[in-house]
Amino acid sequence: MEVGNRYVAIRHHIEGAPTEADFEVREAPARWAPGSGEVLVRNLYVSVDPYQLNRMKRTSTSHLAVDGIQPGQRIAAYAAGEVVASACPEYKEGDLVAGVLGWEDYTLFRPSPTVLMSKIDASAGFPLSYHISVLGTSGMTAYGGFFEVCKPVKGEKVFVSAASGSVGSLVGQFAKLAGCYVVGCAGSKAKVDLLKDKLGFDDAFNYKDEPDLKSALKRYFPDGIDIYFENVGGEMLEAALANMNTYGRVAVCGVISEYTGAGRRAVPDLLEIIYKRITIRGFLAWDFLGRFGEFNAIIGDWIRQGKVQVIEDVSDGLESIPSAFAALFRGENIGKKLVRLRNRIQETAGHADDSAPNKLE
Amino acid sequence: MEVGNRYVAIRHHIEGAPTEADFEVREAPARWAPGSGEVLVRNLYVSVDPYQLNRMKRTSTSHLAVDGIQPGQRIAAYAAGEVVASACPEYKEGDLVAGVLGWEDYTLFRPSPTVLMSKIDASAGFPLSYHISVLGTSGMTAYGGFFEVCKPVKGEKVFVSAASGSVGSLVGQFAKLAGCYVVGCAGSKAKVDLLKDKLGFDDAFNYKDEPDLKSALKRYFPDGIDIYFENVGGEMLEAALANMNTYGRVAVCGVISEYTGAGRRAVPDLLEIIYKRITIRGFLAWDFLGRFGEFNAIIGDWIRQGKVQVIEDVSDGLESIPSAFAALFRGENIGKKLVRLRNRIQETAGHADDSAPNKLE
Repeated sequence: MEVGNRYVAIRHHIEGAPTEADFEVREAPARWAPGSGEVLVRNLYVSVDPYQLNRMKRTSTSHLAVDGIQPGQRIAAYAAGEVVASACPEYKEGDLVAGVLGWEDYTLFRPSPTVLMSKIDASAGFPLSYHISVLGTSGMTAYGGFFEVCKPVKGEKVFVSAASGSVGSLVGQFAKLAGCYVVGCAGSKAKVDLLKDKLGFDDAFNYKDEPDLKSALKRYFPDGIDIYFENVGGEMLEAALANMNTYGRVAVCGVISEYTGAGRRAVPDLLEIIYKRITIRGFLAWDFLGRFGEFNAIIGDWIRQGKVQVIEDVSDGLESIPSAFAALFRGENIGKKLVRLRNRIQETAGHADDSAPNKLE
Repeated sequence: MEVGNRYVAIRHHIEGAPTEADFEVREAPARWAPGSGEVLVRNLYVSVDPYQLNRMKRTSTSHLAVDGIQPGQRIAAYAAGEVVASACPEYKEGDLVAGVLGWEDYTLFRPSPTVLMSKIDASAGFPLSYHISVLGTSGMTAYGGFFEVCKPVKGEKVFVSAASGSVGSLVGQFAKLAGCYVVGCAGSKAKVDLLKDKLGFDDAFNYKDEPDLKSALKRYFPDGIDIYFENVGGEMLEAALANMNTYGRVAVCGVISEYTGAGRRAVPDLLEIIYKRITIRGFLAWDFLGRFGEFNAIIGDWIRQGKVQVIEDVSDGLESIPSAFAALFRGENIGKKLVRLRNRIQETAGHADDSAPNKLE
């Protein structure tokens, strides 16, 4: 079986902020055979995440955990799709799956313990998109990063940067559920309003309105910050450290301001780190892979109980992936950025009803 | 009872590297009365440590744990001395004590759970100086910082900066006792030789001979660094992070290159921290106060068994404290820097025999 397959590739390694022109849509057929041991998936939703930029840079030997993406090659990415052909007993045609697939119409994978892939339980009743946002890596990152890395205690003061993003928007809600006081920052009034009005943050501010981030945080945290969930880097990290309490914890989830090389990099005050006994810890969602099911069960319950709101920002069509990706670095998304491969959904019987939210499509 | 008391004070707040001219010796009598509840101690050895510079700067509100030192005032410091008068039943004349006393001939203290002070058990047979070095805060810092913060596993690769200093010289030896591979760096050939020949480091190098610290560490750690015991800051931290393994740990004990404001501050690569899941944690010796006795029992056994060598660098006379302190920032000390208040020792019957090492003086 051979299907025509379009995929998004980089034209060249990217060093600064990405633009649409750095990408191209290429075509190469996906070939599947009954004895191949492979599963062919038609991708329905693909995830678009800032960290992917780091893989598009010229390979750095120091970032050992990052597989570099080469120009012209397909780009692995978290996605949800439908099995259209399977040479593996665990998967059958029509199964819905979420895991590492790609920025492409179809992906072939060979099941193995090292391939992150899970079958979606349609009876849970969540929209398909949730399985690559709140019930995918974003949720795993937010839950593991907040509860396992930050180890919050009820009453602690939590600061979340990029708080309207895919992970930040969840961390803030999780922090409220843990009994913490939470302030988020974001880059527009609409985002700040969302944090306060819809997501239950105790307070929020637009960092672009604050000429002095240190004094801004002093205003929002007169009693200091216990936990900083770091998505930004640069001056924001310095300002957070200056306002942290003794035994404060910084979970470094991402540093979007430093990915493009455009912003000034953080120069943390190491004396603050010593005297306030601060812990700064980097982590990846993959660190919690063994607890994926456990985390998702909890998050799923919270969604059903209305305790967690899911914010998704969806673009349509494979060809919109480059612009969706570039827009992340201009802060244009609100919530998890996804691309729906609409044409393909329409071809798939039973998965065409995009008008019914909160139902499995 | 009133005794003439000389003490070292700062003439003004110090912002850069300290010099002798920043200090003066002042005099003010120490007055003790039988009903005062106080203990009068004649100081015999005082500790001279780089961190004290941070207390001499203009007060920074952000370094909450540091009590600032004001010009003209006495300077609290770890020291060992002999009780010459006591209005407390727990202490009697002739007792030897170690704890927070001062850069002065005599110190009055009032026992309380918040005052770090312990009676020295003379029967243990260690030189008095050990009680403010290896069995004092330096040992507590090295033991707690290495075993509790770094959590070493046998076979791990450990890098220690300022490795011939009071803490570094112990951390390297502790790391060998934990079955680790240890490389230290220091600032002279004599220090490097000491690390390799006397302290049992697997290797050592003079950082002044290395124009590129990143590639130097790559040479010394072809398989990467698991634990970095940080005493230096600046470029050394950047170089260590670039060479760290996944799940590497950095214990930030001190950052002497950043205390004076002379060196370039560290700009850690936050992407390294994320992708390699590095933990950077600041700590103070005081964090382990509750385990002081436990740590000292272990360290004392190691010393008796010849497994830990104690390196002390002793100057004589109260008036030498300013030059001893200033010399720390030029890297002139080897091992723990102490000042022996010789004149006073000579006045004290039974404690005058400085010629007998490894015996309680």
